[in-house]
Amino acid sequence: MKKIALGIDIGGTKIFYAKVNEKGEIISDVIKEYTPKTSALIEDKLSQIIKKYENEVNSIGIATAGAVNNQNNAILSSTANMPEGYQNINFKNLSHKLSVVIENDANCAAWAEFKSGATSECNNAIILTLGTGVGGGIITDGRLLKGKSGAAGEMHFKMSVDKKRKCTCGEYDCFEIYASGLGLRLTYKDITGLDISTYDITDKAKNNDKDAILAIKKWNEYIAIGILGLNNIFDTEVVALSGSMAEFADCNFIENYVNEKTVTTKTKVTLCTKGVYAGLIGAGLISLTK
Amino acid sequence: MKKIALGIDIGGTKIFYAKVNEKGEIISDVIKEYTPKTSALIEDKLSQIIKKYENEVNSIGIATAGAVNNQNNAILSSTANMPEGYQNINFKNLSHKLSVVIENDANCAAWAEFKSGATSECNNAIILTLGTGVGGGIITDGRLLKGKSGAAGEMHFKMSVDKKRKCTCGEYDCFEIYASGLGLRLTYKDITGLDISTYDITDKAKNNDKDAILAIKKWNEYIAIGILGLNNIFDTEVVALSGSMAEFADCNFIENYVNEKTVTTKTKVTLCTKGVYAGLIGAGLISLTK
Repeated sequence: MKKIALGIDIGGTKIFYAKVNEKGEIISDVIKEYTPKTSALIEDKLSQIIKKYENEVNSIGIATAGAVNNQNNAILSSTANMPEGYQNINFKNLSHKLSVVIENDANCAAWAEFKSGATSECNNAIILTLGTGVGGGIITDGRLLKGKSGAAGEMHFKMSVDKKRKCTCGEYDCFEIYASGLGLRLTYKDITGLDISTYDITDKAKNNDKDAILAIKKWNEYIAIGILGLNNIFDTEVVALSGSMAEFADCNFIENYVNEKTVTTKTKVTLCTKGVYAGLIGAGLISLTK
Repeated sequence: MKKIALGIDIGGTKIFYAKVNEKGEIISDVIKEYTPKTSALIEDKLSQIIKKYENEVNSIGIATAGAVNNQNNAILSSTANMPEGYQNINFKNLSHKLSVVIENDANCAAWAEFKSGATSECNNAIILTLGTGVGGGIITDGRLLKGKSGAAGEMHFKMSVDKKRKCTCGEYDCFEIYASGLGLRLTYKDITGLDISTYDITDKAKNNDKDAILAIKKWNEYIAIGILGLNNIFDTEVVALSGSMAEFADCNFIENYVNEKTVTTKTKVTLCTKGVYAGLIGAGLISLTK
């Protein structure tokens, strides 16, 4: 008997949800709504969505910001873009008929790509979500890397022993502050002294502005340096990039850079294929395995 | 029925071997010999050792330098301290009665500490061997992290995006070239302009030489910076340090540094307990599980 999940992806701005089959295919319309402003309203919204679908599906998976515990039922630590109290929502109680499984959104995206996307058939894969920040989801030996409490996959390893760039985590010079959109902005600022938006930088580059092109080149080098380290630690089969900044990543350059310098074995560097719905697809698929 | 393994650890200089039980206890004398100078002589030596023991044990495990494949029967890439042709030895053929299992020496040490040493009962653990270089062995969810081909756990992630220190791998600024004995030497040189041996540096520090003390402090900071990144990636339970340089590591300082700054959850930092025989113990234990 084929199984179907409800996949929900809650972000700071929007909620996406749809029905997902075991192959990771979306088999209903994807519904998009704004994320309510308080955690009580988010809980209500999730309850309503789940009530509407719980007779039509076998399980419910929710992709969420923040670190999720290894039991997949509680948020360990939330992020700044979610309202106060969000991490205290009792997700398990959202349905009395079906199990509700939650997982970190980057991990869900990694699982979706692993099960039916860019890293399919690769038991060792790393997904990096390059946006305002950088998210990480890591598959080792066919399993999601969760760590002792569920928080693994944070891309906060240092790119410098000097204090050059303050990261959003409070520390200095994490990979995130080099490989994110903010990282590109700071790289452009290093070159020109000007602080302009990532949109403006990429727009200038399209119009052949030398500084903008150089900034994007340096930004790609930083990404390559980080991935080189990850490949030496993980000896991974593929690194797949997603997120709003991924279109500016030069996968060929990064792959060649890493493979020339790695001390383990060669990896592939590619773009993710599941797009913005990777989170809800992965959440649905994970819920079907639990 | 209790099972017993022959554990062998081949290094560039010496071979250690002994019988090991399922608890990771050494139950015979440990025999130490010099490593023969050619790979043909190494093969002969291993054959002799194995012939002597193969009627007394249930399996044979060999800890070796270099990366070992996921089938635990071939070396993927050797290291500079082993003779030419070493990686072509057919380890499987060394015994016709028992299976011969090989594994990277740092991985064997990690397994020994995980099964009966400093990281016992911790399903998520990282072992760092601080010597002339730095070795890594990583346990995630109770399993040895091997990666797609078996080469995972290489501690070559960059500590700088500038080219400051050339690493033994040919790249610049890897963790290894900051956290190793050579890293301490270069740190002392950064401070004083003088290139003296790690022995002389640690000796000076014992005699309250300020520069030597400062170099060791900086060296500990570099180790802490690397472990901070690893804890953010792995959310590990414990990081255990071994190797000839481990006695100069300030575990309390490193643990506090990491736990103040981590974005995942707190980890322990401690010394390994299995000493120089961790490799042969781990090799023996791994062979008993195959």
